Amino acid sequence: MNIPQTSSPRVVIVGGGFAGLAAARGLEEQELQVVLIDKHNYHTFQPLLYQVATGGLEPDSIAFPLRKRFNDVENFYFRLAEVIKIDAEKNRVETSIGTIDYDILILATGSTTNFFGNTNIERYAMEMKTVPQALNIRSLVLENFEEALLETNLEKRLALINFVIVGGGPTGVELAGALAEMKKGILPKDYPDLDIRQMKINLIQSSGELLKGMSDKSSKKSEEFLKKLGVDVWKDLRVLDYDGETVTTDGEDHFKAQTVIWAAGVKGAAVDGLNTECVIERACRIKVDEYSKVKGNQNIYAIGDVACMETKEYKFGHPMMAQPAIQQGRLLAKNIIAELKGKKLKPFVYKDKGAMATIGRNKAVVDLPKWKFQGVFAWFVWMFVHLFSLIGFRNKVIVFMNWVYNYVRFDRETRLIIRPYKRKNKYSFENEQA
Amino acid sequence: MNIPQTSSPRVVIVGGGFAGLAAARGLEEQELQVVLIDKHNYHTFQPLLYQVATGGLEPDSIAFPLRKRFNDVENFYFRLAEVIKIDAEKNRVETSIGTIDYDILILATGSTTNFFGNTNIERYAMEMKTVPQALNIRSLVLENFEEALLETNLEKRLALINFVIVGGGPTGVELAGALAEMKKGILPKDYPDLDIRQMKINLIQSSGELLKGMSDKSSKKSEEFLKKLGVDVWKDLRVLDYDGETVTTDGEDHFKAQTVIWAAGVKGAAVDGLNTECVIERACRIKVDEYSKVKGNQNIYAIGDVACMETKEYKFGHPMMAQPAIQQGRLLAKNIIAELKGKKLKPFVYKDKGAMATIGRNKAVVDLPKWKFQGVFAWFVWMFVHLFSLIGFRNKVIVFMNWVYNYVRFDRETRLIIRPYKRKNKYSFENEQA
Repeated sequence: MNIPQTSSPRVVIVGGGFAGLAAARGLEEQELQVVLIDKHNYHTFQPLLYQVATGGLEPDSIAFPLRKRFNDVENFYFRLAEVIKIDAEKNRVETSIGTIDYDILILATGSTTNFFGNTNIERYAMEMKTVPQALNIRSLVLENFEEALLETNLEKRLALINFVIVGGGPTGVELAGALAEMKKGILPKDYPDLDIRQMKINLIQSSGELLKGMSDKSSKKSEEFLKKLGVDVWKDLRVLDYDGETVTTDGEDHFKAQTVIWAAGVKGAAVDGLNTECVIERACRIKVDEYSKVKGNQNIYAIGDVACMETKEYKFGHPMMAQPAIQQGRLLAKNIIAELKGKKLKPFVYKDKGAMATIGRNKAVVDLPKWKFQGVFAWFVWMFVHLFSLIGFRNKVIVFMNWVYNYVRFDRETRLIIRPYKRKNKYSFENEQA
Repeated sequence: MNIPQTSSPRVVIVGGGFAGLAAARGLEEQELQVVLIDKHNYHTFQPLLYQVATGGLEPDSIAFPLRKRFNDVENFYFRLAEVIKIDAEKNRVETSIGTIDYDILILATGSTTNFFGNTNIERYAMEMKTVPQALNIRSLVLENFEEALLETNLEKRLALINFVIVGGGPTGVELAGALAEMKKGILPKDYPDLDIRQMKINLIQSSGELLKGMSDKSSKKSEEFLKKLGVDVWKDLRVLDYDGETVTTDGEDHFKAQTVIWAAGVKGAAVDGLNTECVIERACRIKVDEYSKVKGNQNIYAIGDVACMETKEYKFGHPMMAQPAIQQGRLLAKNIIAELKGKKLKPFVYKDKGAMATIGRNKAVVDLPKWKFQGVFAWFVWMFVHLFSLIGFRNKVIVFMNWVYNYVRFDRETRLIIRPYKRKNKYSFENEQA
């Protein structure tokens, strides 16, 4: 890895998402060597991926170069690599570019899509956890429209413009809303020779409510917003399979669709080599104590989506979203510094700042700890919070300008097929790795 | 193709570049059906591709969705397709999505990289005519830096950060300048553990002057600017071969480099099926008369880079750049309308508005017909003209904001490897097609 061994203890952080970044920032300017490893050279602001997928934002606007974030930090090293395995006994990480020893290891590998073992769905459905995946969805949606124009067989044409989104969490709801807005304002103008009424957007949720985990009012309101936008919301319907042609469910309704987006589950991106006892099977998250320490280890920590800290209030770990990740990363950095200085450590207590989701223009739902509201004001709050949370001044400005433009012009202009998905990659796994 | 046959004559335009777009715009609201075919669903503003390649701009900022351009136009059809062959006898075009009959055919297929038959160079060097190709260069440059960090063998490390740009035209000059600015302001901060003095940027020109076709003063000044930025300019040196490791030349100097960008030639993207006499061998351009009519045909026209209109002043056709393309497209549209109305046609006379190139911050050269100037003011003129020429209000605003940011912060922030080039695609032809 070509990183000098110094007298300072070495902290290796795997993953430059919300958790890893917060930890790395917190460890700056200490008597420590920090090595950050990520398979991308950028941090991804995942909450806005759905806007990249639907032509509202450019991919580079929600990504931030990791090296830049640490430009002026001493004794910091970034390495573009994938982790293969951890050798906990030897305090060593094996990666695609060689091995590295650590004194302290922080796992912040995040989460990946959970297909719950269904290889058919994994093969044929789209997922949206990374920038390339979001771009693949953008390309596929547009390519299917281009193809639908040419299709004279009605059934085949309908399948090309039938969109099925599985999962009624924030990702599913926001994506369905954004597609519905494209259907309303953009696609009829772009494809005047296509009967856009034939386009269907189906949002399928296995339980009885959308945005599970948010308030009842927000859940109901989001459904109302989606329906107003023309989305077909299916509740209490479980998707069983998808063979590339038909989505089969446990109900009466099946869906012939060329585009299925799987947003029905995530699981921890656990790495090999940890004591198997500490990895929770169902969601592949790593069990940690209240100091984010991986159970049964002295110098390995896990934070963010990949960590499962079972508490009284959160029996199955904290929600897999940005806030717990950031808070865990920050506290862990403080605790590591405290431990080095022989000070007392602080256990993690999650401060729930609330949750929010946007459905469309002037339509969002916000649950703050003491105040829940929906509609136009919620939408402005959603935008402000997301702008504020974006990393990088340039990104903030560019996203803001795009939003102003999209709002004023009722438009989403980056509907470009830069790298075609379908023509070359249909049913290939190649793109998913990127 | 699923396009209705109406009583209006059908004009098929192949290519949505500067020429094709100008022609299509000029034919709006006439008693004509216009069909525009392109293999991308967007127009590319090629003069700024080098900024995408060097992390200064996002790809979507210099691309514009073709469908949007014609949102409100009656009897206009866009089709995403590649042209396979023209059947001039039957007035028919064969494409990847079926055949289409035409009454009038306009070929505006532009140009592709000319490797002059050297398959080695074609295989191992990078080209920059499309957005995906520019993104490939961006990825490769950054991937090579990441790899150089790890390389302990000095010779191999030097080859990874040795950049060879072949061709001293505007593309080569602008790309070399932009890389030099990255070397100056960004890369030392991003890669503090690499000796950035070891990075070399070589610009190789086979003739004795850069920016051939521009004024002597601009040519000299651009060389001076490049040298000031630390670019090694090689004149009167001809590249003979590149085997993926070493660039061999007809001089004493050879270059061990992992990144070679070929900007030494373009050729017309002529299509199959035309009478072979009308295609000029050397540059694959199509011979046209002063009305842009393809010689020996009555209803086939060629405009822009692919067309070669031999005139007294331009013995080998007009320069292959935006201005002649736009002017030819506009006039051709007017002439087609005039012919339908039985009016007199106007022969094409190229109005040379001048040429310009930017080398870096505050450094550009501008040749106007009556005024040639270089330096800061030229740089502002260059920016203003390019902003003004960009298609789309959103693109203008976003590019402007990025430029302001880059100028104030001495930065180029979109240095992201969204789709890795090297890891998967080294020595594969796959990406070039996209």
